[in-house]
Amino acid sequence: MASTKMMHLGAFALASGHHVAGWRLPGAQAGSENLELLKHIAMTAERGKFDLFFLADALNTSPTMHPSMVVRLEPLTLLSVLSTVTSRIGLAATASTTYSEPYNLARLFASLDHLSGGRAAWNIVAGAFPAAAANFSLKEHPEHSERYRIAAEFVEVAKGLWNSWEDDAVVMDKDSGVYVDAAKMHVLDHHGAHFNVKGPLNISRPPQGYPVFIQAGASDTGRDLAASVAEIVFAVLQDLDTAKAFADDLRGRVRKFGRNVDHLKIMPGVCPIVGESEKDARAKLAELGARADAATSLRVLSERMGHDLSAFDLDAPMPQLPPSGMMQGHAVTLAALAARDGLTLRELRDFTSAAMGHRLLLGTPEQIADGLEEWFVAGAADGFNVMPPWFPGALDDFVDHVVPVLQKRGLFRTEYEGTTLRDHLGLPRPAHPAAAVAATNAAE
Amino acid sequence: MASTKMMHLGAFALASGHHVAGWRLPGAQAGSENLELLKHIAMTAERGKFDLFFLADALNTSPTMHPSMVVRLEPLTLLSVLSTVTSRIGLAATASTTYSEPYNLARLFASLDHLSGGRAAWNIVAGAFPAAAANFSLKEHPEHSERYRIAAEFVEVAKGLWNSWEDDAVVMDKDSGVYVDAAKMHVLDHHGAHFNVKGPLNISRPPQGYPVFIQAGASDTGRDLAASVAEIVFAVLQDLDTAKAFADDLRGRVRKFGRNVDHLKIMPGVCPIVGESEKDARAKLAELGARADAATSLRVLSERMGHDLSAFDLDAPMPQLPPSGMMQGHAVTLAALAARDGLTLRELRDFTSAAMGHRLLLGTPEQIADGLEEWFVAGAADGFNVMPPWFPGALDDFVDHVVPVLQKRGLFRTEYEGTTLRDHLGLPRPAHPAAAVAATNAAE
Ligand SMILES: Cc1cc2nc3c(=O)[nH]c(=O)nc-3n(C[C@H](O)[C@H](O)[C@H](O)COP(=O)(O)O)c2cc1C
Ligand SMILES: Cc1cc2nc3c(=O)[nH]c(=O)nc-3n(C[C@H](O)[C@H](O)[C@H](O)COP(=O)(O)O)c2cc1C
Repeated sequence: MASTKMMHLGAFALASGHHVAGWRLPGAQAGSENLELLKHIAMTAERGKFDLFFLADALNTSPTMHPSMVVRLEPLTLLSVLSTVTSRIGLAATASTTYSEPYNLARLFASLDHLSGGRAAWNIVAGAFPAAAANFSLKEHPEHSERYRIAAEFVEVAKGLWNSWEDDAVVMDKDSGVYVDAAKMHVLDHHGAHFNVKGPLNISRPPQGYPVFIQAGASDTGRDLAASVAEIVFAVLQDLDTAKAFADDLRGRVRKFGRNVDHLKIMPGVCPIVGESEKDARAKLAELGARADAATSLRVLSERMGHDLSAFDLDAPMPQLPPSGMMQGHAVTLAALAARDGLTLRELRDFTSAAMGHRLLLGTPEQIADGLEEWFVAGAADGFNVMPPWFPGALDDFVDHVVPVLQKRGLFRTEYEGTTLRDHLGLPRPAHPAAAVAATNAAE
Repeated sequence: MASTKMMHLGAFALASGHHVAGWRLPGAQAGSENLELLKHIAMTAERGKFDLFFLADALNTSPTMHPSMVVRLEPLTLLSVLSTVTSRIGLAATASTTYSEPYNLARLFASLDHLSGGRAAWNIVAGAFPAAAANFSLKEHPEHSERYRIAAEFVEVAKGLWNSWEDDAVVMDKDSGVYVDAAKMHVLDHHGAHFNVKGPLNISRPPQGYPVFIQAGASDTGRDLAASVAEIVFAVLQDLDTAKAFADDLRGRVRKFGRNVDHLKIMPGVCPIVGESEKDARAKLAELGARADAATSLRVLSERMGHDLSAFDLDAPMPQLPPSGMMQGHAVTLAALAARDGLTLRELRDFTSAAMGHRLLLGTPEQIADGLEEWFVAGAADGFNVMPPWFPGALDDFVDHVVPVLQKRGLFRTEYEGTTLRDHLGLPRPAHPAAAVAATNAAE
């Protein structure tokens, strides 16, 4: 382990770019189904020594959605393929607790963790998009607090399933003929408000014990779930004071749950545009803005605010809207920004088209490194999810020009020290409950 | 396309071997979680020009299950990885219609088909193992006919979801800014007895249109589902007459459904043991038998018969049992075999331990090729699912010694002619319904 604390970096791979018009730039490649591009992104992020490669998800679509989300490869199968062209970088998939079965999902993540040699992470989402309900034979998207109750129970069940077999349960001893040690198998027998799951899971314990848990909820309930289980928190934050307050609040909750604050890494999103000068970077942003489709941009903002904004006056100040129960992380941050800067709906729409509400960092590699360092040193962030506005250029620029500056300043690793994602993040591998009991007994 | 009809071959990958003791042989490697072994199997099968690599599945486990099934990598993530070390062979996963959601499963298979360049196949099972119910918050495994009604509706929904986007719907035209052509998107809006699924699916149409459909039900209902949708039927058959009758029955049903009989490939399982002589092969079988665990073998037979046999007298004749509604393919075949040869329960148990009821072919490469040719020429089979009793040796033997004999006889391809699994099988790519309508209009 490095003695000085290092920043963590994730590469957020909306592969048609985070800017709604990113795919239209002359040098850009498009497509969340473009496997060669996705391989390039993962390999470039690994070349840049990033902690993880991160895929968003949704269980619905529409032609006016963000281009990166309309059609796309399924995250767990895609990450399985990407595990073969990388060897160190973590592989994070977003998956919903509202629209899947714990047995199926626990199994998929365990399999990815095995296939990748301990590099899987799960972004636990309660499912932000109500339109998914109609794809899953449900009349209605469960309401906010119910979604979070389901999510909390789902995670408990998944953990229990990953503990079905102790780490050394699979013996495969040819001489004795013992294939598995039945005494090291544990039947979960979970009976809860939302799930009844007996177990055991039909796959052995993941190399990391559990995949790394990521969470991005920003409401009070969401923060509590994050504080109780998450190891990475993904957030949408615009200014340092708010970010610091968010981090302090979250760390306070982590302590309340009796956890070690070092085991929670707060990683807000940042959208970097590297230029030869700040002016050059601003010109690139303007070039992107000129290509943005207004309807798509407004839909992205509507989705993030949780309200359909198509009937509002674009040139009036951004309307005040009641909380929607959808994506509070974005909604609160964007509303605060509009209020702070007195933005019209049109101005907020155009801002959101660049990075969906995430912090924009424009300028020279040094300026971008300054922006990251400032938040890191202030304790507002343990790292960042880097959201390149287009691919592959904007990520290549970050890896080739910003990462070396961070490394020179001693803020970021120059080489991986371990092989699993838990290693990169300095997170402990959760012991199997039976092993934990055995250790306590031995100590007594 | 070759002018003479060729046999099709699948490599059935129960990676600890099909024989319950396969993993215990000195040269054997064990483990359905052994990625290097699984890669070797897939690559060897591709070297042998096999049509497909095939994974079974179950959604429950137990330490006394068949060793190959106790703990194992999840099929769709595993096949995604195997798609990277192969380029032609089809990749088939078994997946249940009783314990998954059509939106999630259709998406996973579409993704695998994209990642593999059109090589995915889905073995549609209604879920043979009642123990799965307790892992999915269900009080009871739905009964036989209900499972098949769910399966039939599930497949219709999945097809509809795969048709969400016409083949050329994703435009990504930088100049006009059109990302997808909304006119080529189709909303399914399915409302049925078991599922309500709106769509569209969030992934573009699979390269093969749909993955290749496999089915292995043997009951009357199962055969009808196979005849209406399957393109490969996987069967457990012991003698030529029964196999011919099965094939004739199935082809009759295919015609009744108005389908082309050439679009259904009947591929019974065969378990080959290649030796320098028949005696040598029999000695290998005896060596395996000596290592078989009696309890595991009896559990495998119980599972296949759909009845717990542990209380019966091992040395009395195999008891007559009522149909169980579990795996009729195996139950009927094994019961008939016991009756024909007057087997005791112990004898049937030992027979089943070798290949779970599938046909054993023992002897020289020529003898094994004879056994395959006989059924193929008689029209009892369009090909075979090869179930090596241990890995990697028994598959290596088949590829190195039996495949060349089949090739010399003109019964099996010497090179792949196409790139997709549909190409290998000579199956048409299903046109998108809208394209089919357009073609009809143009012809009028
Ligand atoms: C930065 C960020 C990224 C998110 N990514 C996804 C996503 O990919 N898919 C999804 O369904 N929800 C996503 N969400 C939604 C949250 O996980 C959460 O379900 C939602 O914000 C509602 O919780 P809250 O009210 O606590 O914020 C994201 C939220 C944030 C803040
Ligand atoms: C050769 C063969 C292989 C099968 N493989 C599986 C499997 O891997 N997983 C599963 O759940 N069911 C499997 N089945 C079960 C069938 O797909 C089907 O659900 C079951 O046999 C009940 O249908 P039936 O009564 O029509 O035979 C298999 C059946 C046969 C005959």
